[in-house]
Amino acid sequence: MTEKTNTQDNSVLNGTKISRRDILKTAGVGGVGVILGASGLGGLLSLKEGNAATPDTKEIVPFYGKHQGGITTKTQNHVYFVSLDVTTAKKEDLVKLFKEWTKAAALMTAGEAVGELSGNEFMPPKDTGEAAGLSASNLTITFGVGPSLFIKDNQDRFGLKQKQPKELADLPKFPLDALEERWTGGELCIQACADDLQVAFHAVRNLIRIARGKAALRWAQTGFQRTKQSDTKNETPRNLFGFKDGTANPDVNSEKQMNQTVWVQPGDGPNWLVNGSYLVVRRIQMYIEVWDRTNLREQENTFGRYRDSGAPLGQKDEFETLDLQKKNEQGEYSIPVDSHTRLSHGNGSEKILRRAYSYSDGMDMKMGSFDAGLLFLCFQRTPSKQFIPIQNRLAKMDKLNEYTSHRGSAIFACLPGAKQGGFIGETLFN
Amino acid sequence: MTEKTNTQDNSVLNGTKISRRDILKTAGVGGVGVILGASGLGGLLSLKEGNAATPDTKEIVPFYGKHQGGITTKTQNHVYFVSLDVTTAKKEDLVKLFKEWTKAAALMTAGEAVGELSGNEFMPPKDTGEAAGLSASNLTITFGVGPSLFIKDNQDRFGLKQKQPKELADLPKFPLDALEERWTGGELCIQACADDLQVAFHAVRNLIRIARGKAALRWAQTGFQRTKQSDTKNETPRNLFGFKDGTANPDVNSEKQMNQTVWVQPGDGPNWLVNGSYLVVRRIQMYIEVWDRTNLREQENTFGRYRDSGAPLGQKDEFETLDLQKKNEQGEYSIPVDSHTRLSHGNGSEKILRRAYSYSDGMDMKMGSFDAGLLFLCFQRTPSKQFIPIQNRLAKMDKLNEYTSHRGSAIFACLPGAKQGGFIGETLFN
Repeated sequence: MTEKTNTQDNSVLNGTKISRRDILKTAGVGGVGVILGASGLGGLLSLKEGNAATPDTKEIVPFYGKHQGGITTKTQNHVYFVSLDVTTAKKEDLVKLFKEWTKAAALMTAGEAVGELSGNEFMPPKDTGEAAGLSASNLTITFGVGPSLFIKDNQDRFGLKQKQPKELADLPKFPLDALEERWTGGELCIQACADDLQVAFHAVRNLIRIARGKAALRWAQTGFQRTKQSDTKNETPRNLFGFKDGTANPDVNSEKQMNQTVWVQPGDGPNWLVNGSYLVVRRIQMYIEVWDRTNLREQENTFGRYRDSGAPLGQKDEFETLDLQKKNEQGEYSIPVDSHTRLSHGNGSEKILRRAYSYSDGMDMKMGSFDAGLLFLCFQRTPSKQFIPIQNRLAKMDKLNEYTSHRGSAIFACLPGAKQGGFIGETLFN
Repeated sequence: MTEKTNTQDNSVLNGTKISRRDILKTAGVGGVGVILGASGLGGLLSLKEGNAATPDTKEIVPFYGKHQGGITTKTQNHVYFVSLDVTTAKKEDLVKLFKEWTKAAALMTAGEAVGELSGNEFMPPKDTGEAAGLSASNLTITFGVGPSLFIKDNQDRFGLKQKQPKELADLPKFPLDALEERWTGGELCIQACADDLQVAFHAVRNLIRIARGKAALRWAQTGFQRTKQSDTKNETPRNLFGFKDGTANPDVNSEKQMNQTVWVQPGDGPNWLVNGSYLVVRRIQMYIEVWDRTNLREQENTFGRYRDSGAPLGQKDEFETLDLQKKNEQGEYSIPVDSHTRLSHGNGSEKILRRAYSYSDGMDMKMGSFDAGLLFLCFQRTPSKQFIPIQNRLAKMDKLNEYTSHRGSAIFACLPGAKQGGFIGETLFN
C-alpha cells in the first residue's frame, strides 16, 4: 500500500541503500570517527559495494511523494506525537525550519542519522545518537499546522491569514469535554510513527532540537498498539477496553476511498492543502477500573459489538454491514440507540480514517487509578462534515461516555507531500 | 539462556501448546463463545491435534522454575513497572493474593488469558481482553516485596517482622536525590517485561484487578529499549544520551557469575529469599536538551567512554577491561576521575546486573522540556555491598549528575521462583 501511494520520487533511496547500522560500522571504533554528513554517504558507498544492507531497507517507508507518510501507511506499533508553538516572529525562520525538517525527516525515515554521529569533538554531535544501529523501523514523520499559526490574538503573524482554510478552525466545545491546557492545541505538530519507540523518540527529539529558537514543545504523548499480527492478515487492533478498534475504517488501499475521505481535493479550499489532510487528535482517558467491573452484556451494548469477534450485535462477522434495523427477541434494536457503533455510524455518510493508539502514562494521582486510554488520531478531508458531526452525536449520548473523558484536543492541517528537492510546507509558504 | 536457567518444571507448557490467538479462534464468533477458563484448555486440545501453534511458543519464557523470570532473562523491548501498597490487614488475604497472582502470571506468560474471554454475559469477563490474539511476546512477570510490608509505622502488620532481611531496608538518602513521593517506595512490586507493550500492560492491569481490596496501585512507569537487534549478536542498547548502557554487565549465561552477583545464596540472610534477588529501581530524569548542547568531548569525558563504539576512553573495544591507569598526552587519566564509568567501576569489586529501560512521559511542564530519562532497574545479591556503595560514589562526584536528576526510588526483594503447584511468596508466607 504505502509503496504504491507514497512513492513518487524514491531515487535517493535507490542510490543509497545504507542504514544507520552500516554508518556505525563504517565509522570505526575508538572515537576516531569519520565525518558522515548526509553528503558523505555517496563517498562511503564505494567502500561497501556488494554489501548492501538489504534487510533494513525492507523497513523503510518512502518519505518523498504526493502525500506525507503516516496517514494511509500501515499503522506502526508506536507513535510519538508532539504539538509545538512557534517562538520566532519571522516568516523566513519558519521557512528555514520546514526546509531543515524536511531534510532531516528524509534522512531519518531512510534509517540514516541527521548528521555526523561523531565528527568534531568540540561540537555537540549533529545526531543525538540513540538510534545508531537501529533500522528505520518503518518510521514515518508527518507535519501539520494548527489554526493559531495563521491568526493568533487577532494578529496575522506570518502574512498567512489569507491562506487559512475555513476548515482549519478550533474544534467546537463538545458536551462533556474535560480538556486540559497541557494536552490541547498547538501551532505545529509532528506525528512520528515507527515499529520501535526509540526510533520514533529519536526522530522527534532531533526535529525539536533543529527547531530551537524557532519553535518549542507544547505537549507530547507516546502511544502503542498491538503488534505481532499474522503475516498474511491485518487483524483490527484492540483498545484498552478489550474491543476491536477501527473495524469501520475506509480501505487505505483504495485510492478512490482515500480521495473521497482523507485527501483534500482541488476546490475544497486553498490549493496549498490539496493532497494534504486534516488531523484531529483527542487524548481520551479511559476509566478501565470502572469498565472492568461492568458485565459483558453491558460492555457489548455500550460498543454495539461483540467483544470477541468484533461483529455488530445480532450479526456474525466483524466486517458485516451494520444492520441498524435489526431487533432482538425483546423487540429492541440489537445495536442499541446509544451504542458507540450506531452513533459513530450515523447515516453512514460521514467516514474518517482512524489511526488511534493506546497510551499508558502511569498513574492518575487525583483518581488513584491508571492514567491510560486512547490517543485518538483521525484523518479526513473536511472536518466540518466528518469528525465534527460524528463527535457531536457521540458527545451527546454515547453510552461510552460513562467510561471515558476527553482530556486533550487539537486540529492540524497535515501538509501535502514534497518532491525530492522540495520541502514540506512549500505550497503554504511560497 | 532463559531456558537453561529458568526452566525447572515446564510440564504445564509442554502439555498445552496453545496461545491466546488459538483460544480466540476456537472461541468462535458472534458472542456465542465457549467458557475457556484455565481448566478448560486441556479439553480444547483434542480439537486441535496436529495443529499446534508452534510459532507462538517460541516467544514464551517459562514461568515456573528455581528463579523468577525477568531478571536474567534476555531484556525484552518494553517494561511496565508498578509499585503497590497493601490495603488489607489480613495475612490470609495476602497469601490468597500471591496464589492468585501466581496462577494468573503462569497463564499470561504462556500467552493465555487469565480466565474466560466471553463466558457469562451477566458478569465482567475474567480477562480484560486487550491481549486476545497476541503472542506471549516473551512476557515475564516478576514479583517483589518492599521493606514496609514487614514493618510500617512500627507495626508488625502481617507477623513477618522476624523474616525481614537486614538488606531489605529503605535506601539511604544520596546527595542530590530529588525524590518525589509519586515515584517512590511501595510494599509490593510487579515488573512486567515483554516485546509488546500491550501484552505487558494487559498483564499488570489484570494482576492489579485481581488485587482489588487487597492491594492498590502506588506508582507506575512504562519503559522501552532499543529493538531489532542483529539475530546473531546482542548489541548493548543505547540510552537517551546516545551512549551504550550496560556494557559492564555480568554474564547472565554464567550460573557462577549470577550466583555471585544476583541470586541470594544460603547464609546471606533469611532462607525464604534464597534464589531470589534484590531489585533497586531509580527513576532518573535526563536533561536531554542540556546534553544536546554539550560537545562530544565533554559527553565522552562524562561517561568515560566513546559514544560510537562504547570503548573506554583511550582504548579500542567496547568490552575491553577498563585501563584506569592509562594517561593521555597531557598526562591526565584517559578515563577522567569524575567520569561515570570510573566511578561506577570503583575497584571492580561491586557488580550489579543492570536491566534499565528508557522512558518518555511527554513534557515536563515545570521545565518546559521533555520528561524523559532512564528507568534504572538493577538486580543484586546484597544491596549494601553492591548498589549502595556504587551510588554513594556516583552521587558525590559523577559528572553525569549535571545532566540527570533522581526523581524516584524503591527497593524490593524479588522472591524466588515457584514450582508448578506452588506459588510465588510460598517461602515467605508459610
